[in-house]
Amino acid sequence: MSEAAFLRARRPEHKQQRREAILAAARELALRSGVREVSLGGVAAAVGLAKSNLARYFATREEIYLELAAQEWHDWERAVLDRLAPSSGPGAVVDVLADTLAERPLFCDLLSHSSTQLEHNVTVEAARAFKLTAIGVTARLGRAVARVCPHFTEDEARELVGSAAALASLLYPAANPPPVLAELYASDPEIAVACLPFVPTIKRMLMALAAGLPTLR
Amino acid sequence: MSEAAFLRARRPEHKQQRREAILAAARELALRSGVREVSLGGVAAAVGLAKSNLARYFATREEIYLELAAQEWHDWERAVLDRLAPSSGPGAVVDVLADTLAERPLFCDLLSHSSTQLEHNVTVEAARAFKLTAIGVTARLGRAVARVCPHFTEDEARELVGSAAALASLLYPAANPPPVLAELYASDPEIAVACLPFVPTIKRMLMALAAGLPTLR
Repeated sequence: MSEAAFLRARRPEHKQQRREAILAAARELALRSGVREVSLGGVAAAVGLAKSNLARYFATREEIYLELAAQEWHDWERAVLDRLAPSSGPGAVVDVLADTLAERPLFCDLLSHSSTQLEHNVTVEAARAFKLTAIGVTARLGRAVARVCPHFTEDEARELVGSAAALASLLYPAANPPPVLAELYASDPEIAVACLPFVPTIKRMLMALAAGLPTLR
Repeated sequence: MSEAAFLRARRPEHKQQRREAILAAARELALRSGVREVSLGGVAAAVGLAKSNLARYFATREEIYLELAAQEWHDWERAVLDRLAPSSGPGAVVDVLADTLAERPLFCDLLSHSSTQLEHNVTVEAARAFKLTAIGVTARLGRAVARVCPHFTEDEARELVGSAAALASLLYPAANPPPVLAELYASDPEIAVACLPFVPTIKRMLMALAAGLPTLR
């Protein structure tokens, strides 16, 4: 959409279109270069808007990314619900959780920034909407997991789902290191060994939790 | 130390003194306002140096904080080794790991920033030194835990120790929210419930791992 079209649009559906164009541009930039490298100015440039005009829709880059993160939570929810088979064992549940996260690098990248970066510099309302999304998806997925896999109580299943997202947020930066660390891993086998692989590590930790949580009842 | 004294000092021991003064100032600032809020300019001002002079010792704030984080890893190692009693059960080991982390808010704060922030904007050498410290402490604590608690293999004990540090990095920001989130937690009980308490959550997750990891042999 041209800047002129952006400025002309006054009707609610046009405003919504502009928001979506901004979010799409931010998503594209984050996928290409990582959430960390994207600035509000970069998003404005990509969508063909002056930064001051973009500010009518999103006051900070963090508000853009909290909204993308909320979309990604919903997308992950759909994917997990699609793949959870009836009468699953804990291993099948763990595979679904880990594989759907591995297929969503933007979600993992956003998760890895959400507590230290994205939840700063946003309004209370934006933070509330994001938190309610994350809490709601985790609760619904917990119920769905407990339904197909009676090995878990609903609370344990919710803890497993929350742990999957938390592990993804921890392991994603390690598996996608900045240039300095990539150079280090390539040059120093002792350090490379300590760089945990994403899917096997998530699966092992979730399997340990799946076995261990019910022993704490 | 005055700026004049900083500039006069030429001998290696004086250079070391200056480095220590800079690290002490950065530590103080981070304890007061959080790692996230500390800038290189702020550290320079606190230590009474021009930013250009400080750059002779540390090129970026991230290099200062990687070095503080390395100090904190060693300090945590000493504390855990001091408290691990002979013939401990998994519960006693988990208590030592969780309690020593809870007593070290600066360590937890630094851990929570290390993968997304502190490992950027540093030299390969600074990153290597930091990684080797974290790997070394985790390995030595793993051996120490397996020695007092034969419930764990050495590998499992190392995973437990690494998980304790990882959980601290995840839970610390949640337990010490920025003002916007603190306001949200105070005003919205549904969201406050989802803000996990630091020590009980680390202990529960570590107990689940302690029970679950040996089942994966």
